[in-house]
Amino acid sequence: MNEEDEARRHRLKMEKRKAVQDAEVAGKTVARKGLLMVHTGAGKGKSTAAFGLALRALGHGWKIGVVQFGKGQWRTGERNMLEKLGQEFGQVSWHTLGEGFTWETQDRARDAKAARRAWEKARELMDDPHIRLLVLDELNISLRYEHLPLEEVLGALAARRDDLNVVVTGRNAKPELIAAADLVTEMTLVKHHFGAGVKAQEGIEF
Amino acid sequence: MNEEDEARRHRLKMEKRKAVQDAEVAGKTVARKGLLMVHTGAGKGKSTAAFGLALRALGHGWKIGVVQFGKGQWRTGERNMLEKLGQEFGQVSWHTLGEGFTWETQDRARDAKAARRAWEKARELMDDPHIRLLVLDELNISLRYEHLPLEEVLGALAARRDDLNVVVTGRNAKPELIAAADLVTEMTLVKHHFGAGVKAQEGIEF
Repeated sequence: MNEEDEARRHRLKMEKRKAVQDAEVAGKTVARKGLLMVHTGAGKGKSTAAFGLALRALGHGWKIGVVQFGKGQWRTGERNMLEKLGQEFGQVSWHTLGEGFTWETQDRARDAKAARRAWEKARELMDDPHIRLLVLDELNISLRYEHLPLEEVLGALAARRDDLNVVVTGRNAKPELIAAADLVTEMTLVKHHFGAGVKAQEGIEF
Repeated sequence: MNEEDEARRHRLKMEKRKAVQDAEVAGKTVARKGLLMVHTGAGKGKSTAAFGLALRALGHGWKIGVVQFGKGQWRTGERNMLEKLGQEFGQVSWHTLGEGFTWETQDRARDAKAARRAWEKARELMDDPHIRLLVLDELNISLRYEHLPLEEVLGALAARRDDLNVVVTGRNAKPELIAAADLVTEMTLVKHHFGAGVKAQEGIEF
């Protein structure tokens, strides 16, 4: 096949793909609404991708809420930066109410109490009509260890304002939450340098 | 089993888990080095998680580089915000050199030229000793369509400075790139609201 033929074949293939994509987009007719998103799986990037969404939301001038159910991977430095952006672009309401995971604290009653406190704050932010994106970081862990009743959480999420986007992060998302969600991404660990004996990297992993 | 027994059992289990984790971390002895990270898969969050890493890197006062091989999901608003943060916290060198994917442009020669331009910029940033994190957004697409020779890219990545972290994003990462990487995360689409006929959301998806 000569070069011209190949170029033509490529063009036709790409035209076809574009037509399929255009048709797909045109076929979406349901009115805009706030999404329930879940980032789960044993891989990296669940909270980090939620960060990225927060950044994007601020770029749209939205007010965002963040509730951390664990101490999580979001450090003070990152929080400071998002809050700084919030002063100029949108607005940030950030609440770290978890006290670390149960395998650190080894105290189930304390964990459940912390989860309850975080959930009450989440409910409060859900009632703030200015908030358009709410990040519930590591809520999946609290649900998995039954520090919060699943039905109560699902009920509140289902009854949320129509324009409120919610991102729930953490491993082992409950099947019922996945069923209720609009968009679920599983971060799968394909390969990890820890296997090769490399220590966690400052700036990358914490 | 009474409550006290259950609490004790839980505590023992968690103590054991913590001991395993502590031993794992203590066993890592290889010296710190820049990581090669890959975000791939058909799911959401590949570029968005790279965003989050960029935010985190700025929080450490690092200079970061971003090269977009496609037009990508990173819009002007997000770029502006990262650059704004860069003025205060770290430093940002951002280059959008892709011209959209091949199924949009339908011109293979133009795509290859754009990929080459982007790659030359990436090489330049790799030589800047101040940059500690380099994001090569959608490079996987350029490699998949053979707009760039895989060997050339792998060679340059292997020869990079020891303290340079690199994130490569995009679907269909080449197996050879995965083999060379320290950390590979596959973003898997578990569920997508597009299936339910909801249009892409401003602020969330673009």
